Amino acid sequence: MKALVDLIKQKDTCVCVGLDPVIDSFPDEIRCSAQSVEEKLVTFSQGIVESVAPHAVAIKPQIAFFEQYGLGGLRALKEIGSIIRDAGLFLVMDAKRGDIGSTAEAYAKAFFSREGDFFSDALTVNGYLGSDGIFPFYEAARNTQGGVFVLVKTSNPSSSQLQDLRVEGQPVYEKMVEVLDYVEQPDEFNTLGAVAGATHPAELKKLRKRMPKRMFLIPGYGAQGGMASDLQGAFGEDGCRAIVNSSRGILYAYKKSHLPWKEASRAAALEMKEAINAVRYK
Amino acid sequence: MKALVDLIKQKDTCVCVGLDPVIDSFPDEIRCSAQSVEEKLVTFSQGIVESVAPHAVAIKPQIAFFEQYGLGGLRALKEIGSIIRDAGLFLVMDAKRGDIGSTAEAYAKAFFSREGDFFSDALTVNGYLGSDGIFPFYEAARNTQGGVFVLVKTSNPSSSQLQDLRVEGQPVYEKMVEVLDYVEQPDEFNTLGAVAGATHPAELKKLRKRMPKRMFLIPGYGAQGGMASDLQGAFGEDGCRAIVNSSRGILYAYKKSHLPWKEASRAAALEMKEAINAVRYK
Repeated sequence: MKALVDLIKQKDTCVCVGLDPVIDSFPDEIRCSAQSVEEKLVTFSQGIVESVAPHAVAIKPQIAFFEQYGLGGLRALKEIGSIIRDAGLFLVMDAKRGDIGSTAEAYAKAFFSREGDFFSDALTVNGYLGSDGIFPFYEAARNTQGGVFVLVKTSNPSSSQLQDLRVEGQPVYEKMVEVLDYVEQPDEFNTLGAVAGATHPAELKKLRKRMPKRMFLIPGYGAQGGMASDLQGAFGEDGCRAIVNSSRGILYAYKKSHLPWKEASRAAALEMKEAINAVRYK
Repeated sequence: MKALVDLIKQKDTCVCVGLDPVIDSFPDEIRCSAQSVEEKLVTFSQGIVESVAPHAVAIKPQIAFFEQYGLGGLRALKEIGSIIRDAGLFLVMDAKRGDIGSTAEAYAKAFFSREGDFFSDALTVNGYLGSDGIFPFYEAARNTQGGVFVLVKTSNPSSSQLQDLRVEGQPVYEKMVEVLDYVEQPDEFNTLGAVAGATHPAELKKLRKRMPKRMFLIPGYGAQGGMASDLQGAFGEDGCRAIVNSSRGILYAYKKSHLPWKEASRAAALEMKEAINAVRYK
């Protein structure tokens, strides 16, 4: 994921905006318009991408929020993918896919074929099935200079039920890091990255020590409770080895602002960028 | 999943046919036809559903194989869903979804809304995120009398890397069973079932003892190496608490047969049904 590190350096921001569209939460001018579901999704997402582009490095569409609207939602996702790439932003498809053999290859084809409808720069992957469930994604991503973010320690409260169980003195989530290292040796730049939640600051710091160079995708910032101060020590020596995601806090910033919706989202992205840049090198 | 148990009793079969369509493997009459990708997928899948309907209880479309063909593949999947339900078969969507909170709810909406494009009787779910990642699926499935199959012990070789790690003398996959029990208490009929591979017969038997009544989805039969004799003790006291999946062995049976493709698939499903029925009550 050298391209992502370069983009972070160039734009001086680690902000990733999660695209979790819920039409009922859209501003009235879109929600109440005569547009189709598909058009509403595209109009809103395009507005968000344009608003946050100066302050964000990546956009992370959460595919569930498109799937819930059926085929119309997925047609919108295809169009939004082009909008994200045209804006020069890194597209992380948050699909948490995970399967083996030919099935994993089929998923990898869906997300890492340049001519495909859902071409992405990076994909989130669930590694519960072991290295067989990661390898096909890794290979496909490497071929397109893309990336794969494997769930290591997630941001939700019940992540502890499985991920924190101790095996020979180590939590299961550190065993997941061993699976990553088994698929791809750590290097200056890697194809495999890790998902590690902002809501677990101590674990995040520990994971950075364990993986000095791998890219982290850090969810849980903002609405889920994670703050910039929780991210100290998460960005690696060059301060560029993580992207931090906020979804609702940026998408629906207009609800807590006197600004029009696009300006409210832009202001929220700027505020997040500055808060994070203040801790990136600490 | 009482409806599935009833259907197994009524049809006297535990066969589940995995729909993993790969156009390059289709019979020439479809592969070389002038049909679009979408039409080819529908024609082949419809032929399979009609062929195996007398001997199968469930069809399991693997969504990756549709996603790899982009929007056309997903349009085909919608149409195939109707075909499966019209044939009176139980539709297990193999999507291995797993996420939390509002995202899991969005996925649940995608697969458990009767008016949705991808309405399914049951869904496979990856529980690495803990109970937060299972609960929204459980609730949505319960509302439609559907089911959720949570990955417990998968059929692939590297499943041991994480799932077999020992925590306080127990493997991680048994800890996953505790998460299931935490979301839904075991009962005579449950909404939550378990995925447990045919390629691990000893673990399968152990898991049945641990979960006497829950429905099992057992992958790994046939092409992946699992045999009927590996399934002894997997079906519970009434012999109706598991469905066994074969994909390639049935879809592409014509390649190892002198019969036309549909007849070859029907014969393969019949053979599988009989082999499994011979061990269901052992």
